[in-house]
Amino acid sequence: MDLIEDLGWRHACKEMNGKKVPREKIDRILEAINLAPTSLGLQAYKVLVIENKDLKEQIYKEACQQQPITGCSHLLVFAAFTQLTDKYLDEYFSLIERKRNPGKEWCDKYRKRIEFFRDKNGDNMENWLARQTYIALGIACVIAANERVDSVPIEGFDKEILNKILNFPEQHLSATFILPLGYKDLELDWMNNQPKVRKDLKDLIEVIE
Amino acid sequence: MDLIEDLGWRHACKEMNGKKVPREKIDRILEAINLAPTSLGLQAYKVLVIENKDLKEQIYKEACQQQPITGCSHLLVFAAFTQLTDKYLDEYFSLIERKRNPGKEWCDKYRKRIEFFRDKNGDNMENWLARQTYIALGIACVIAANERVDSVPIEGFDKEILNKILNFPEQHLSATFILPLGYKDLELDWMNNQPKVRKDLKDLIEVIE
Repeated sequence: MDLIEDLGWRHACKEMNGKKVPREKIDRILEAINLAPTSLGLQAYKVLVIENKDLKEQIYKEACQQQPITGCSHLLVFAAFTQLTDKYLDEYFSLIERKRNPGKEWCDKYRKRIEFFRDKNGDNMENWLARQTYIALGIACVIAANERVDSVPIEGFDKEILNKILNFPEQHLSATFILPLGYKDLELDWMNNQPKVRKDLKDLIEVIE
Repeated sequence: MDLIEDLGWRHACKEMNGKKVPREKIDRILEAINLAPTSLGLQAYKVLVIENKDLKEQIYKEACQQQPITGCSHLLVFAAFTQLTDKYLDEYFSLIERKRNPGKEWCDKYRKRIEFFRDKNGDNMENWLARQTYIALGIACVIAANERVDSVPIEGFDKEILNKILNFPEQHLSATFILPLGYKDLELDWMNNQPKVRKDLKDLIEVIE
């Protein structure tokens, strides 16, 4: 179980065969997503896990005509909060107190720091919160590969329509990407066994000794 | 070597002890970063690996006064391209041809799709390219934890100054985050052994069966 090998194994799976991924593998991927770090620890996003066939078909028809939307086992939709409400922070600090209990003084100071950052950033908050979901995506890709579950991150969907289908706007959420999880269709997944296209390390990495 | 255990082990390391991380561990982390998926496969970013003590100190003094900047072994700086130039696409398609050789017709069609997307998105491109670097961050966090190397993703730096120190603007690059890699200072890293603050799964995940 070598992680570099796992990452070499994974690829953007273009066609899935509808086979179910065992619940325990999905649970491990979700557990890992929940352990993803996020800036200030906020985890300001939701992950929908869609198994429902009708809903997958509706998303396929109306928002994203890519085969893995319906061919997958579990369709994950990541959605970031578009704002950081006081209510959200109330809940976050309840969680911190429950898990770590660092005391009122620490919490007050930390909350002021977050509120300062929020007020300073204004309209940029949505973009900043959206970025955090991509950390979880990276982690999900590793764990899925490690479990030999195929996946394909998809950003190419009609965001407005998908948000509407999933009632995101009324929850102050907006979809950032979709991650179908399943198993490749060995005949139709043309990306399977294609050589991986990655830069030579020297073109991505610059070492300053 | 359980990945959930690795993710439970990792935390945002607040103080590092200056000890060197062996080169082969750094190489594995960099290799994993290079295997991170990115939208359209573009990998439109650079990763600086800074070992130089003077440069770390300059960054600490001028752009980010957090101890791991100088206490780390290797300071990784992720920087996304702020635009997708024709020259960048030329190089990308040379790489695709070299690695996979899918033929001129396929490349022309794919390039047109990327250019259409680029032209449609205008000013949003910078944000979209920046998001992709966070996928690599998620992957780097898993691999570092798996290697029992401490890390701490940092967004709280003066971006303009850091960009200037590293000559990013002239390369059309902009820093997205910093990732110090090293080993925790067991006495001073107050985050070590703190209970992890994460949502109950039901508050992050919604299952639609």
